[in-house]
Amino acid sequence: VHGTLGEDGHLSGGALGAGERSWIAELLDLERLDGDVFVAREPEGANNDGRLFGGLIAAQSLSAACSTLEDPAKRPQSLHLYFVRGGRPGVDVEMTVERTRDGRSFDTRRVTAVQEGVVILEMLASFHVPEDGADTHPPAERWLSVAEASPVELPPSMGEHFEFRLPGERPHVFDGPPHWIRMITPVEDDPIIRACALTYMSDMGLMMASRPPMTAALPGNFMVASLDHSVWFHRPFVPDHWHRYQTRSLNNNDARGLAIGGFYDTSGVLVASMSQEALWRV
Amino acid sequence: VHGTLGEDGHLSGGALGAGERSWIAELLDLERLDGDVFVAREPEGANNDGRLFGGLIAAQSLSAACSTLEDPAKRPQSLHLYFVRGGRPGVDVEMTVERTRDGRSFDTRRVTAVQEGVVILEMLASFHVPEDGADTHPPAERWLSVAEASPVELPPSMGEHFEFRLPGERPHVFDGPPHWIRMITPVEDDPIIRACALTYMSDMGLMMASRPPMTAALPGNFMVASLDHSVWFHRPFVPDHWHRYQTRSLNNNDARGLAIGGFYDTSGVLVASMSQEALWRV
Repeated sequence: VHGTLGEDGHLSGGALGAGERSWIAELLDLERLDGDVFVAREPEGANNDGRLFGGLIAAQSLSAACSTLEDPAKRPQSLHLYFVRGGRPGVDVEMTVERTRDGRSFDTRRVTAVQEGVVILEMLASFHVPEDGADTHPPAERWLSVAEASPVELPPSMGEHFEFRLPGERPHVFDGPPHWIRMITPVEDDPIIRACALTYMSDMGLMMASRPPMTAALPGNFMVASLDHSVWFHRPFVPDHWHRYQTRSLNNNDARGLAIGGFYDTSGVLVASMSQEALWRV
Repeated sequence: VHGTLGEDGHLSGGALGAGERSWIAELLDLERLDGDVFVAREPEGANNDGRLFGGLIAAQSLSAACSTLEDPAKRPQSLHLYFVRGGRPGVDVEMTVERTRDGRSFDTRRVTAVQEGVVILEMLASFHVPEDGADTHPPAERWLSVAEASPVELPPSMGEHFEFRLPGERPHVFDGPPHWIRMITPVEDDPIIRACALTYMSDMGLMMASRPPMTAALPGNFMVASLDHSVWFHRPFVPDHWHRYQTRSLNNNDARGLAIGGFYDTSGVLVASMSQEALWRV
């Protein structure tokens, strides 16, 4: 069991040592230049395709937007972005935030991420003061035929920062490969850092659900690139708890694949929803 | 039968008279000021809530973005927008387009719509030169339990510009009310005007799928407002042909409801996918 549910219903997760910072908080710690301009010192580590991981640039852009919020009660509500060009590892990215609106209940921000003089990411994001009301969502089983399985029953797969459990083959040609994911080490109990961590993790697995389902029948290999990405933040997220990432295809044509997904905790509660369109070029 | 499928597989729809323009093309005809700034002369007609219809501002913003494309081969690929504030009927809206990127295969644009000095809509949009590849999507029945019914078997419901056929109650608490929709009069055989028409129509019905499913158990009436809206354009669209708009809820909490939808033609072909989050405040 990772983390605990307090008497107040607050989800905590594992604890960091005194004075310790999580690796993701380090990556989200941008240098602030004049006004609302920020610089991210990007790591040397590249994605499989030699590019900077898109989820990292997305998380850093959201972090930059959050740094311009005046109202501490505001929480990330959703973001929509285009990956305009691939990013280069080890090269600074400058993020300029525009304060589109500061409202009573909602703030709106736009972030433009520039590397070596060209835009690599353009994001719109919205922030909302929590409100009461209905609290429900369709059960995960309603829209995906994935077999129920607890993550501890499955063989583990470890990365540097993440642990995965893969229940097996995709249950249907239009489902993405089902998987469980969690961050190995704890993250600060801060809703903004955790929303940024979720943004990072939301880019791990959604693309595979956008893959053309008849890959075997198509010639050669694919050049793949994420085109857009959206996240809707629903409920508190504890990155070092297990979450099931359910994904499914909505469409494939025009060398593009569109997929949606949901992050569910081990109780089946929907933490966030995501969409992504990717280029799949033969 | 509205329109015909030519021997080249080209969908045409009904024909406009010589020199005739569709009503939607008139609304999309913006005045161009200096550079990439456009003015929309908004109609007096208001939505139920006294505001300018969001789908209209969205369609006009996409039209403005399309007016800045240099490459006639580019087609609308997708758009993501926030409805930042409600618009006022009968008051000009100024739309400023920023050319984020002009690439070989993809162009990216950002549109900011301002009315009376404040931003009412912020949009990111992408454009793509058509490419070959896989061409498939999940059947509509896979993700919605709506009963199959041809639109001609259902009682009609007419508006000024649109005709609806409503098969009845929502089949499941998490489905939106299923409906068929078409534009009564033909639209120019122009992929950009038709993509704008689709954007307009995509804002007719998605919100109802984001409604909290236990409305009856909640006190009083709701104040409703669309917060964000996304459209992914998949295949050619003929506005005066019947389309089934399938919608479903993904989540309700924090006074927000998220829904996704798909536009299917009478052959069951997926023309476009959409998402929308709306505020449902008691």
